[in-house]
Amino acid sequence: MKAESALKIGIAGLGVVGSEVARQILNHADTLAAAANRPIRLVAVNARTKDVDRGFSMDGIDWVDQAVDIAARKDIDVVVEMIGGSEGVALDLARASLMAGKTFVTANKAMLAHHGTELATLAEAHDAPLFFEAAVAGGIPAVKTLREGLAGNRVKRIAGILNGTCNYILTTMEQTGRDFGEVLADAQRLGYAEAEPSFDVDGIDAAHKLTILAAIAFGQQPDFDAVSIHGIRDVSSVDFAYANQLGFRIKLVGVAEPGLIPHMQTCLLPLESQLAKVNGVLNAVEYHADPVGAVLAVGPGAGGGATSSAVLSDLIDIAVGRHTPPFGRPVSQLRDNKSIKNGNGPDRPYYVRLMVVDQPGVLASVTSVLQRFDISVEGLLQKGRAPDDVVALAMTTHETSVQTIRDALQEIEQLDAVKAKPVAMPILPVDMGA
Amino acid sequence: MKAESALKIGIAGLGVVGSEVARQILNHADTLAAAANRPIRLVAVNARTKDVDRGFSMDGIDWVDQAVDIAARKDIDVVVEMIGGSEGVALDLARASLMAGKTFVTANKAMLAHHGTELATLAEAHDAPLFFEAAVAGGIPAVKTLREGLAGNRVKRIAGILNGTCNYILTTMEQTGRDFGEVLADAQRLGYAEAEPSFDVDGIDAAHKLTILAAIAFGQQPDFDAVSIHGIRDVSSVDFAYANQLGFRIKLVGVAEPGLIPHMQTCLLPLESQLAKVNGVLNAVEYHADPVGAVLAVGPGAGGGATSSAVLSDLIDIAVGRHTPPFGRPVSQLRDNKSIKNGNGPDRPYYVRLMVVDQPGVLASVTSVLQRFDISVEGLLQKGRAPDDVVALAMTTHETSVQTIRDALQEIEQLDAVKAKPVAMPILPVDMGA
Repeated sequence: MKAESALKIGIAGLGVVGSEVARQILNHADTLAAAANRPIRLVAVNARTKDVDRGFSMDGIDWVDQAVDIAARKDIDVVVEMIGGSEGVALDLARASLMAGKTFVTANKAMLAHHGTELATLAEAHDAPLFFEAAVAGGIPAVKTLREGLAGNRVKRIAGILNGTCNYILTTMEQTGRDFGEVLADAQRLGYAEAEPSFDVDGIDAAHKLTILAAIAFGQQPDFDAVSIHGIRDVSSVDFAYANQLGFRIKLVGVAEPGLIPHMQTCLLPLESQLAKVNGVLNAVEYHADPVGAVLAVGPGAGGGATSSAVLSDLIDIAVGRHTPPFGRPVSQLRDNKSIKNGNGPDRPYYVRLMVVDQPGVLASVTSVLQRFDISVEGLLQKGRAPDDVVALAMTTHETSVQTIRDALQEIEQLDAVKAKPVAMPILPVDMGA
Repeated sequence: MKAESALKIGIAGLGVVGSEVARQILNHADTLAAAANRPIRLVAVNARTKDVDRGFSMDGIDWVDQAVDIAARKDIDVVVEMIGGSEGVALDLARASLMAGKTFVTANKAMLAHHGTELATLAEAHDAPLFFEAAVAGGIPAVKTLREGLAGNRVKRIAGILNGTCNYILTTMEQTGRDFGEVLADAQRLGYAEAEPSFDVDGIDAAHKLTILAAIAFGQQPDFDAVSIHGIRDVSSVDFAYANQLGFRIKLVGVAEPGLIPHMQTCLLPLESQLAKVNGVLNAVEYHADPVGAVLAVGPGAGGGATSSAVLSDLIDIAVGRHTPPFGRPVSQLRDNKSIKNGNGPDRPYYVRLMVVDQPGVLASVTSVLQRFDISVEGLLQKGRAPDDVVALAMTTHETSVQTIRDALQEIEQLDAVKAKPVAMPILPVDMGA
């Protein structure tokens, strides 16, 4: 093969990931050139502050003061956006880069979840490839697996553990029996959770990734507003004990199915399922599809090393000319969000936990509400007795719809003996594992 | 994007996988065309016998009597070889197809492990792309993950569960306490093992896949003869009990590391590691690499659905023009097998199990041999006592080399009290999991 000219890169944003991408390009030029069959060269960088030691030398690299100016440079083929945030500088840079016909690489899940269709349209109009392997599940090649590796399949369901902070907190709560607040505080001290944790623990970050996966899987426009999102704050240590007794583990799982609203919520997974075995800060994506069956990928979802691996794989794809439409097919063929039904997915069994005053008649009044909604109770759990005190009462139901369970719980919450907002989590089936 | 002309396919071999590929192409033309951005059309097929109902109509499809004749047809772009066997018809067809400049897709791991370099050379010389996603780990996009998804990494180690039959047998032995022969017979009845099982249970099939992965991971020519292979026949039910007591599970794992001999052998994996949790007929590949860390993929390793998924993903890559050199880089850049050192990988702790006569002095004579080889014993296990009877004695050692353990066991086998060939398995570290 003939030697080709270098692929010339500009990086905007030099935080943990941006700096690691720069160091990889500079320190491992030979390995990257071998994989790309041409050199990959870092030409220019931009960040908010200039005089910081980022572990690489600026010799031969231009400093650019304004991120958006990278888009205008004639000597740059690929703009790598590592700034973050769905709006502002990152979005300005994305638009400017694509309109200038530059190849654009980003890890920005928020921007893609909110503006993915606009950016893919710009990319097509200006023949400017748009890559974002790093936006979903860090080091797991989750986008490539779905968009190329399983491209011959009809996807039936995606189930993902897409936020390492939440998975770490839930795993630690289960293993130590401690409560959410305490474990979160520890995670913050250890650097696994941000000082302002809501982006993670309320499921927003994971839902951004689910939005992107659903768009690719089902050929629809990414639409963050169409996703139903519920984080992990409601889960209590008693839920882990009950779930375990029933043979399940609690995980924050994003589930997307064709034509239905994607859901990000805590679920009960059978202990023997593969997804239930993914613990700590790891991420995982399980693809259910025809004809393949089920495939699971597990790996680090965040951090400089993992995320830069994804960026580098995009750069190599670009260098060798392997292109794919951003969401798997031309924008004109993506269904709009009206194609997502107001349906909430298949009926499932539910785990329901109530905080009730332990007194005669409570169970009867709860079950009579459930009966009115045609929800049949499968099992009942209560740890100990504490007459006239508040206790946790858990039950599992037979298959029912999200809407039915919501409506029933709204009524149950009104009962005098019920002392807190009821918690309900769907029980997912074992699809993989032995 | 403009509509392109159809990609025209010929399939040679209509067994379980070949027939499923044909049915997928015929029954799901629309989904495939959407992903490929052009139609994928089945033009001709070949198999040993013609008049068999394979679940699809031959209307509009040509029957070809001799597989090799598919290579010569002007109306075919891609030859899909589903015949199998490292030599004979499959190899003739591969050579003829590539020499005719046809794109060649195969699931034939044996042929690639033995003739991969020759075929990649032909592919390059005739500008004929060679694809084989289906050759490794069935439905898991194991080749694409390594060759593209992790292309920016330096691979440090690959560890794979690459044979579903062996994994099923080992899982069942562990779960039931039954012996190899009995479980194998059951697996044969259930269709999980062949009547002639040696290809699977002696590790050959798994080693073919490991050969291919090692070639891509380390930029070396595939060389089956350089792989050290040991199957699962030696493992006894007592080993599972001991391993479990020590906190491990026994798996047939293929391990490949840069510049060293790839090994296919039974290993002890820590119960909390991700790979240890892959049970039953599932396959798994764990990639350890810089900068990503560790990524694991799990899925069905065989069967019509899983394998056809891999073939279809190759066909879509071909249709849209995503090409990669077969082993990740041009053949001229692949190191030859002299680059593989006569080294056997890093020193590891070992599990050693002996069948010895339970009498005074046996342990002393065994440990004195180990001491002479500078192998220090970490732990010792013996279930029950049976004076003057043969019992299973197990021990774990500190880190030592393969060669040292082999030499020591050869001497130990000569001791009067030792009544069977000693069994030794390396203990792999936890690299992933929590």
